[in-house]
Amino acid sequence: MRGKRLVNWLAALFASVLGCIALAAPAKAEDGYGLWLRYAPPEGEAKAELSRHPIVLATNSQQDNPTIAVAMAELERGLESLSGLDVDRRASVPTSSLSDVTLISLQCDHPQIAGGGAFSLNSSSSKVSILASEPIGCLYGAFALLRSLSEGEPLDSIAYSSAPAMPLRMLNHWDNPDGHVERGYAGRSIFDWWHLPERLDQRMIDYARANASIGINGVVVNNVNARAFMLEQRYIAKYKRLADAWRPFGIRLYVSARFSAPQDIGGLNTSDPLDPAVRAWWKAKADEFYRAVPDFGGFLVKANSEGQPGPQDFGRTHADGANMLAEAVGNRGTVIWRAFVYSEEDETDRAKQAYAEFVPLDGQFADNVIIQVKNGPIDFQPREPYHPMFGAMPNTNLMLEAQITKEYLGFASHLAFLAPMWEEVLDEQTGRAGTVAEVVSPVGMAGVANTGSDRNWTGSHFDQANWYAFGRLAWDPDLSSEHIAREWASQTFTRDPQANDAIVAMMMRSREAVVSYMTPLGLAHLMDTGHHYGPAPWVCDLARPEWNPCYYHRADAEGIGFDRTVHGSDALSQYPDEIAERWDDPATIDPRFLLWFHHVAWDAKLSSGETLWEALVAEYDRGVEEVDAMARQWAELSDAIDPQRFRAVSESLEIQCKEARWWRDASIAYWQSINGLPVPNGARQPAETIEAYQSRSFPEAPGQ
Amino acid sequence: MRGKRLVNWLAALFASVLGCIALAAPAKAEDGYGLWLRYAPPEGEAKAELSRHPIVLATNSQQDNPTIAVAMAELERGLESLSGLDVDRRASVPTSSLSDVTLISLQCDHPQIAGGGAFSLNSSSSKVSILASEPIGCLYGAFALLRSLSEGEPLDSIAYSSAPAMPLRMLNHWDNPDGHVERGYAGRSIFDWWHLPERLDQRMIDYARANASIGINGVVVNNVNARAFMLEQRYIAKYKRLADAWRPFGIRLYVSARFSAPQDIGGLNTSDPLDPAVRAWWKAKADEFYRAVPDFGGFLVKANSEGQPGPQDFGRTHADGANMLAEAVGNRGTVIWRAFVYSEEDETDRAKQAYAEFVPLDGQFADNVIIQVKNGPIDFQPREPYHPMFGAMPNTNLMLEAQITKEYLGFASHLAFLAPMWEEVLDEQTGRAGTVAEVVSPVGMAGVANTGSDRNWTGSHFDQANWYAFGRLAWDPDLSSEHIAREWASQTFTRDPQANDAIVAMMMRSREAVVSYMTPLGLAHLMDTGHHYGPAPWVCDLARPEWNPCYYHRADAEGIGFDRTVHGSDALSQYPDEIAERWDDPATIDPRFLLWFHHVAWDAKLSSGETLWEALVAEYDRGVEEVDAMARQWAELSDAIDPQRFRAVSESLEIQCKEARWWRDASIAYWQSINGLPVPNGARQPAETIEAYQSRSFPEAPGQ
Repeated sequence: MRGKRLVNWLAALFASVLGCIALAAPAKAEDGYGLWLRYAPPEGEAKAELSRHPIVLATNSQQDNPTIAVAMAELERGLESLSGLDVDRRASVPTSSLSDVTLISLQCDHPQIAGGGAFSLNSSSSKVSILASEPIGCLYGAFALLRSLSEGEPLDSIAYSSAPAMPLRMLNHWDNPDGHVERGYAGRSIFDWWHLPERLDQRMIDYARANASIGINGVVVNNVNARAFMLEQRYIAKYKRLADAWRPFGIRLYVSARFSAPQDIGGLNTSDPLDPAVRAWWKAKADEFYRAVPDFGGFLVKANSEGQPGPQDFGRTHADGANMLAEAVGNRGTVIWRAFVYSEEDETDRAKQAYAEFVPLDGQFADNVIIQVKNGPIDFQPREPYHPMFGAMPNTNLMLEAQITKEYLGFASHLAFLAPMWEEVLDEQTGRAGTVAEVVSPVGMAGVANTGSDRNWTGSHFDQANWYAFGRLAWDPDLSSEHIAREWASQTFTRDPQANDAIVAMMMRSREAVVSYMTPLGLAHLMDTGHHYGPAPWVCDLARPEWNPCYYHRADAEGIGFDRTVHGSDALSQYPDEIAERWDDPATIDPRFLLWFHHVAWDAKLSSGETLWEALVAEYDRGVEEVDAMARQWAELSDAIDPQRFRAVSESLEIQCKEARWWRDASIAYWQSINGLPVPNGARQPAETIEAYQSRSFPEAPGQ
Repeated sequence: MRGKRLVNWLAALFASVLGCIALAAPAKAEDGYGLWLRYAPPEGEAKAELSRHPIVLATNSQQDNPTIAVAMAELERGLESLSGLDVDRRASVPTSSLSDVTLISLQCDHPQIAGGGAFSLNSSSSKVSILASEPIGCLYGAFALLRSLSEGEPLDSIAYSSAPAMPLRMLNHWDNPDGHVERGYAGRSIFDWWHLPERLDQRMIDYARANASIGINGVVVNNVNARAFMLEQRYIAKYKRLADAWRPFGIRLYVSARFSAPQDIGGLNTSDPLDPAVRAWWKAKADEFYRAVPDFGGFLVKANSEGQPGPQDFGRTHADGANMLAEAVGNRGTVIWRAFVYSEEDETDRAKQAYAEFVPLDGQFADNVIIQVKNGPIDFQPREPYHPMFGAMPNTNLMLEAQITKEYLGFASHLAFLAPMWEEVLDEQTGRAGTVAEVVSPVGMAGVANTGSDRNWTGSHFDQANWYAFGRLAWDPDLSSEHIAREWASQTFTRDPQANDAIVAMMMRSREAVVSYMTPLGLAHLMDTGHHYGPAPWVCDLARPEWNPCYYHRADAEGIGFDRTVHGSDALSQYPDEIAERWDDPATIDPRFLLWFHHVAWDAKLSSGETLWEALVAEYDRGVEEVDAMARQWAELSDAIDPQRFRAVSESLEIQCKEARWWRDASIAYWQSINGLPVPNGARQPAETIEAYQSRSFPEAPGQ
């Protein structure tokens, strides 16, 4: 079923669904607010087992410890929802053995469990114990137990120990104080600065619960393109209210700081990091934060990038700037400094600039400075090779920055499960210091959040999976994408094995589909200007060269691709020799990175035997076919999924089916206008003219 | 309990509430999404009565009629929720009498019931019938029955007939296509233009249900400050999807049109309403709308006001412009033309301009043109005298425009129940054509919506009451505010009589409290610039005179107030003689309008025996005291209200307690800087200096 037929079939399906179901307004509609924490009761044997005996929940640990209190409350909530029983909560673990009860007990001061959030779950004969050496381990263990039960695992078989691989597992919110979220596709910001500190939205509690359930322990609450006034005292009062609410969930609050704040709000005439008055201002500011929020995490800084102020404005280095802030924060917290820099004046390949600026500074950063490096050297494209900084700064704390919000992968309109993308980079051998995962594990991972005020938090139901997967991978980068997809789907949608298989299969093919219909064979940055939605490879008239898609694809009558070999920008030289040599040859490079590093003739024969042009068109078609396949898989799940979410996902897939074709057709039409070639044998002509694609505009696109 | 003590006491309360409840994350949290349609099961006798017998729901009317289908679905949902029973739904009304069942039956073609949505409810011996002559009457009747049951009325005593007083009961959304809501305080727009037409958010169904439940039958989906591209074909497809979803609920869709669209998107070089090409363009555009949406309601236009284009740009009148559009729409729909105009060049009293522009055009507007007139002559201030256009255009269709969103009454932060404000203007005798309600009843009422993407729809729980009250008053302007408050509170919060009394008492004092602490004794327009939040009576340097608070209060060393008598702007002459004479004399005018019409000496003695200055300060204090009293009343309801909403309202009241003092203190400090007077005996000095109040800024204020 292809193209128009598929669309019609979907349309008919929606009409009937709408008629029968949406209007009937089911009383127990699933709106997605519960995320993966729905605790839907199991059915059949699992249900019977869980409900067989009364459930007793008990701990000998301090119940007035706020973290233990939330762990107990979550267990009570989850167990009651899963079992349908009232849980009997005890202030201490019964010493005599209780017969015919299921006993869930917490011990949060167990000396043999590691710290840092580690926990151990053990069960035998209707007794489950959660052991940890600290309250936060108990909370993580409680969520892990509820996850297992939600997946349908029998109580008696639970035996599981876990500890986080990385100390810092963090979300970065690009949320502005006025509620707008830069690159946000899920409504307004979840942070209600306007009403804080007096009013604390229940969402702030539910957000902390969701984060804790996947091990996230740090949150930067505002955009890296920061407003200086968010460092003022009246904002610190707001942070205090949030931090107090989040502390029981093990979440530390961080703030993005504008480097020029001493001038913007401090009344100084410089922000030079070596100026004593500037240093004193930041020290006093940090002290002000720590007085209100004793466990304040620290500052995140975007400096000297895309017009943001930074130490280079005063002739200083990134290290000068970061270390000055690190001194102000002291041993109380951390300064996270972004490596996403490209200069408005630098004419060298944008892919090279971060490495060129930072690697020479290796070893110069203070111990409490972390350099935050995006997964690839450009900017969160559907596929990039790993960032060459990983492995190249052995004497610097590096953490990975991933983008959970899908700025370049179809916003919240397209289904794209991102765990395979992150897994791809985490597993990459840097050739210098092990895998990327091994490089960042001593430090951490940050993900640019995809949350917003929408009822389902993330703008689409499947985008919840990206939040979930980010947390799970930061906890354990060895988890496979498929394992995570399965966990998530069984908690979020259904435990039915067949339906679960189908959902996991959809998720696992989804990101590669987006790569295929948007940026196949190593192409990148072909999206439209400003909002970054839809295809616009033709754009070539923007003021800065590296803002233009034509800068990246370099298509001409002969071929396409960015020559980053020694004959071109030589970005390859930033990679270790072993990798650079493999990628230097179009015959040996992974074809997924081909046009990232090479300018290839349209008629060049690839190892597959196809010409590049044939392979490119085939790849676009594969992307479209994959989306159609996803839509078919979903359509078969109507009996397995609640009607509200079934319709919502169906309608999103309808958009994606249409827009995959848009990407394919507009891209091919444009390449044809350059290479003059007909579409290869058997391939479909673009549906519209290149001019028609170029004339599209949609000023209502979100997230700008 | 006053001031600081109250705040501390509230703070302690919140801390304990937060500790015990919010963190415990109750499984059945009330988040407000259900609005007044929660259908919470009654308790005790009422519950027993409702659950005594199996419930049979039946109709002989066409079940495939979409409106009857949604009526049946709503009854099923509501009755099941209220009774806890499964409802037995039958395809036809049983002919033999059923014993021991409760039978709810619909007859939607009853010849003796009027049309237009009228219905009749009758009950006897466990049989309740809903009678109407049209499906929409059945739907309204179904909601009325569920409302009665939700209020706790016994099934057997339901006997009630009702018909809407006005044909058009409409919401105007000031929602922009990018999701920003002008003067919106509840998150982003509920309209997801980005994903329409493919994706229809469940909110669009729940929104239609909520509207239908209070009789609203028209919705303008976009801002009166309209973007022309929202008239393009791709938007018409979006409107079609919405209109199709709303049609079963009896809701017609309207669109705000930009008057210069023929130039903006039509390729013409004029938008002159008398130009044949312009007329043809609008006719074709209207035809395009009606092909997609056969029951499209029509266009709303803001013309020649605040910089919007209009017929005066081409030397034509409002009538020329409106009639041209009315011809394009024809008998298929309506053109609604706003009377909210003030010119950037006109130097006369802004309060006079709408009357001056429109009244001379009386009788010139086409039959399908409605002139939409705000309740007062300025702009939705906490209190204004009624608009003198009401009663002054006997040969023109006039409808009332009210503002449900609280642009000038504390956004969603302050509790202010607006029904008393609307009741005040509806009940006003125009002296020419009966009350304002009588003037507009043949036409209708429009309310500027307060909905958004927030979980509770309106940004605060109590603001739901304003949406509810607007619909109820448009259905029946004779309903008392207190009756509406009681209905709403019992459905939304609790049926407990004592708690209900307390909530109603809070609501009924709330708007007058806002008037007292913001704009007492007829003052108006004293808010800060741009965002319109907080006090700024000192602002006097904006480009246009009528943008400045000082234009409105005219305070000087001698006195305060705007002289609108014959000695001043003579705006009084726009009112009928009988009213003008009463208001012309400071001794006989209603003191609530005193400073609206008179410049009064600070030391003038009022009828109360106080000086104006004493009365003014006392009024501010009364406002503050009233808010404190509201907070105290609410605090006593902790046992009667679910914890999540109890905390949310408590925290909002904490803000309001603080900000009522801010308004009082900043205003008094400023008047003192003008009149040099000490605070009257016993009154509290402002807490801060006038400079401190003037220096406050909060760029994160929403809704700009």
